[in-house]
Formats: sequence, structure tokens, C-alpha cells
Amino acid sequence: MSESLLNKSSASMTSTDFDLPSWSRARQLRVEQALSAWVAPDVPAGLGEAMRYAVLDGGKRLRPLLVLAASEAVAPLDAATLRAGLDEAALRAGLDEAALRAACAVELIHAYSLVHDDMPCMDNDVLRRGKPTVHVQFGEARALLAGDALQALAFELLTPDDDAVSPTVQAQLCRLLARAAGSAGMAGGQAIDLASVGVKLSEPQLREMHRLKTGALLQGSVMMGAACGAPSAAALQALSTYGAAIGLAFQVVDDILDVTADSATLGKTAGKDAEQDKPTYVSLLGLARSQAYAQELLAQADDALKASGLHDTRALRALADMVVNRAN
Amino acid sequence: MSESLLNKSSASMTSTDFDLPSWSRARQLRVEQALSAWVAPDVPAGLGEAMRYAVLDGGKRLRPLLVLAASEAVAPLDAATLRAGLDEAALRAGLDEAALRAACAVELIHAYSLVHDDMPCMDNDVLRRGKPTVHVQFGEARALLAGDALQALAFELLTPDDDAVSPTVQAQLCRLLARAAGSAGMAGGQAIDLASVGVKLSEPQLREMHRLKTGALLQGSVMMGAACGAPSAAALQALSTYGAAIGLAFQVVDDILDVTADSATLGKTAGKDAEQDKPTYVSLLGLARSQAYAQELLAQADDALKASGLHDTRALRALADMVVNRAN
Repeated sequence: MSESLLNKSSASMTSTDFDLPSWSRARQLRVEQALSAWVAPDVPAGLGEAMRYAVLDGGKRLRPLLVLAASEAVAPLDAATLRAGLDEAALRAGLDEAALRAACAVELIHAYSLVHDDMPCMDNDVLRRGKPTVHVQFGEARALLAGDALQALAFELLTPDDDAVSPTVQAQLCRLLARAAGSAGMAGGQAIDLASVGVKLSEPQLREMHRLKTGALLQGSVMMGAACGAPSAAALQALSTYGAAIGLAFQVVDDILDVTADSATLGKTAGKDAEQDKPTYVSLLGLARSQAYAQELLAQADDALKASGLHDTRALRALADMVVNRAN
Repeated sequence: MSESLLNKSSASMTSTDFDLPSWSRARQLRVEQALSAWVAPDVPAGLGEAMRYAVLDGGKRLRPLLVLAASEAVAPLDAATLRAGLDEAALRAGLDEAALRAACAVELIHAYSLVHDDMPCMDNDVLRRGKPTVHVQFGEARALLAGDALQALAFELLTPDDDAVSPTVQAQLCRLLARAAGSAGMAGGQAIDLASVGVKLSEPQLREMHRLKTGALLQGSVMMGAACGAPSAAALQALSTYGAAIGLAFQVVDDILDVTADSATLGKTAGKDAEQDKPTYVSLLGLARSQAYAQELLAQADDALKASGLHDTRALRALADMVVNRAN
């Protein structure tokens, strides 16, 4: 295939006529199946039951989709695949073992954080994804342990004792996930959040809190997907910028939805932020400027992808669009 | 050096005239310094303070010592080192980066488990190592987050982003730690423990609970130390047997001390097991048979080391003796 043909094909593949729902459904199905197999029901004393309750049959699986979209974007596409478009065989090749494990691992970290976040000593929430929260269903002690065990399981999934994933990729995935989840990431952001109730934060302080609390794991998902392949330094930098932008956009939109949507649409209790006197983008910037900021972040994410040099970033672009323009 | 001389040297080195206190002090100091450097004080919103409170300046550091003893036992000792005995240079060589990171990582997992275990929804304990527990000192929400962040930090320590530890060793250490900490290890054992209050367990059921709850991380410590070197399959099997024996012995002795020692000696509340109607070895076998069982497990650990083919297992033997014959 000549260079010009390749460029033309690449250009048409990054157009906006991308069917995100179909793309997502195929991957959500694989993630659900993998999670159901890996979050073991045979764990003793009701712990497995609580872990499965926390993880299965819920959520948009945004983080796994980001992992898979990034891994597919960095996967080297050969000429035949480019000619054929993304057919079933290419999908299967892209969704390799490392990416699937990484996708499930980030979802386990996300799920454990929700379990602990909902507990009485934290947000004391009783409704999550339209169901009773884990501690309501299984008691606080089991919820605490289930969260702890889910975090450990995430790192188990990343370190299979076989040749399916190279040790270098295993170590890199553990490195990225531990940093995204820990005190310089999600847990650190939650601590700031906890300490900020009733406190007036500046916009930089609010951004720093969200960069850690929500952004780190979303950006980490993108970087873990990238770590499954071998992207150029430029592509890696672009994906990092993309991840940071959508990570922050996610939280800005969350703050917007907390005041504009109802509990039924959200699948969780709406209006909690104002009720708990938590600093949000809406309380700081107002609704209109928050909405404009979310669109600006989407543009930043788009620009980063355009500059990435990657062949097919349609799924990543569509996911960014979904993050910013979602209804729940 | 001839084979016979080497054997003679090796035999003399496995004699019982081993100075465990000196051996331990040098390593505890390195572990304390490393933990103090790695459990960062600059973590936001008081989270770092709670993490450091949970980890620093407390405990016997048994798990780190097991990691380091195992790593030194599998480290190839050259003839010059054998002739010289374990001098300072050999000590430093043995305590390599991987082993130190592994030693600190298991201690972080142990520390996080204590923080969560002490919380009101679990054991509701207010005293630990003679100090107020973390949730008493920092509040429940911050204790929960500090535990979560300590678990993530353990995996961060195992995956440095440099060439100090090979990716293969990094991945293997993460694999062993995740399995020891998770639902098939410590967290699973805690869930059984939780479900067993007021329940009559058989001896096999009690053993299974303790094998997971306490044994998995102690055995995991030994195996992580071994993973820093390149032991033979026979040595690895022997270390696994050793780790299982001392892991169980630790809990049997814990049960004994809960009825024979006072709170001041233990540094935690004595007599809690009986008060909470928890099944223990003492309640199941009686005190005398529990004590005999602990000695039998020590003999099993000793036998495993003798059959290991490793040159110098004195530290491991002395640690096993300490586990069984400790006063607190």
C-alpha cells in the first residue's frame, strides 16, 4: 500500500461516523465475561458474593473502555487490517490478554473505591447504580474487606503466572495502576475531598483535588492501554494529555449533573454535593461556565489525539465526547 | 576451596550460636529508614500523616525480617564470603534493592490490615502497639483511606521505574504479594474470621482460616525473599514448607498469648478472643496441646530448612524459634 493510500485510509477512519455503541457493546461484553470469571464466586464466607455484587452487572465500564480504546489505538495496524477496516479478527487481535486484564484491573480499583466511598464513615450513601450499596447489602465489615480484596485482585489480574503477558508489561501495568490508585492519585484525592467539606477552594485547588481523585485513574486507564503496545514517545505524550483532559472533564460534568439531573437518571443520589457543602465546579464557576469548561476540555482531548500520529483514534474521540456529553 | 571445606564451613554456619538480636537490629534499622523515606510525609490532607502513624516506629518487623532472611539464604554466597562469615560487605550485598522493597511492601500490607482490622465495624480496637489505633487518632474516614493508600503503596514500592529491580522480579513480587493479601489469602481469612464469631469450628476449619488470615502473608514474605534470588526448586519447596509452618505457628502462639499474657506485654488488648467468643487453638485444643502443637510446627520448619540444601539458614531458623517462643 502506498503512503498516500495509507494516509487516505487513516483519514477516513478518524472521521466522526464511528459507531460507539456497537464498539462499546462488544467490549463491555468481553469485560463482563472476564470479570465474572475472575472475580471468583468461591471466595470464602460471603466475601466473594460481596465482591461480585460490587463489580458485576453495573456501570458504563468507562475505564475498561478507555484501556481497550488506547490499546487498540497503539496496536500496530498492518496494511491488510487498514484496508479491511476494523473487522472481527482485528478486534480480537486488538483485545489481547494484557489489555483485557488491564481493563478489568482498573474496573476493580474503581469498584473498590466506590464500596469504601459509600460507607457510613465516608459519604454514607445507600444507593449506587440503582441498587443498595455494598455495606447496606452485606454489612460494613464485609464491605470493608470486599473493597480491600478487590484492590489486591486488581494486581493479581495484572500478574498472571504464565507467558500470556510479558513480565515487562506486567510490571509496567502494576506501576501505572498503583500510582493511579494510591496517595498520589485516587486515595490522595479522596483525602483532599474529605478535608474540603465546607472549605472554600480556589479553582487550582479544586482542579488538583479532581486531578487526583477521579482524573488519575481515568488517565491511568489510557496509559495502561498504551502500555500494552509500543507507542512512540509523541503518541504517549498525546495520550497522557488526552487522559488528563478527559479525567478532569469527567469531574466537571459530574458536578454539573449533580445539580441538573435527578437521582433516577443518575442511578445515585443527586444533589449530594450542595447538601454536603462540597466545593464543586458549579459552586465555583457557575453552571454556564462549567459547561463551557467541559467543552474546552473536550477540545483539548481532541487536539491531543489529532497530534498523536496514531492511525485510528476514533474510539478514544468518541469516548471523550461521551464523557462530556453524557446524561448520567 | 574444596568441597569438604565448603561443607564444613556451611555446617558450622548453621549451628545455633547465631546472634539474632544483632542480625535483626541492623535490618530493622534499614527497614525503618526505608519506610520513613517511602511512606511520604507530603501526601495531601493529613493522609500521609495517618499512613506514617500506621507504619512507622512500631512492631517487630517480623515480615520484613522473613523477607530479608529468605533473600539472604538464597543469595549465592561465594567462597570468600563463606570463609569470612557474614561481614558487613556481605550483609549489604544481601540486602539488595529488591529485598528491601519487598520487605517494606509486606510491612505496608500488614500495617494496612491492622488499620482496617481495628476499625469499629471490624474488631473495634482502640489500642495497638501501646498507642491509640489509627481511627481513634485520625478518624474513621482517614483510617479507611490510609489503609487503602498503604495497600497501593506496597505495589508502588515493588515497581520502581528504573533498572534497580528487573521486570521479571518486579512482576513476581507483585504476583506473590497480591495473592498473599487478597481473597485467597489475608482478606479471605479475615472474612472467615468475621463469619466465625460464636461458631464452633473444627480443627481443619480453624487451620484453614489461619492459613489464609495470618499464614499467607508470613509464607508470602518468605517466598518474596526467595524470589529476589534464584533458588533451586528443592530450596523453594523447602522455603514454602517452612513458611507454611511458621505461618500457622504464629497464630497458634497468638492464641496462646491472648490467654497467658497481659495487655501491657502484648501492646494490645489481651483476652479479646474469649470475650468475643472467637474460635482459637486454645479453645479447641486446650493450652497444653496448643503449646505442644506450636513446638511441633517449629520442628517442621527446622526440618524443612535442613532439607533445603541452602548454605546458611541460621536467620530463618532463629526467626522461627522467635515466632514460637516469643513473649508478645
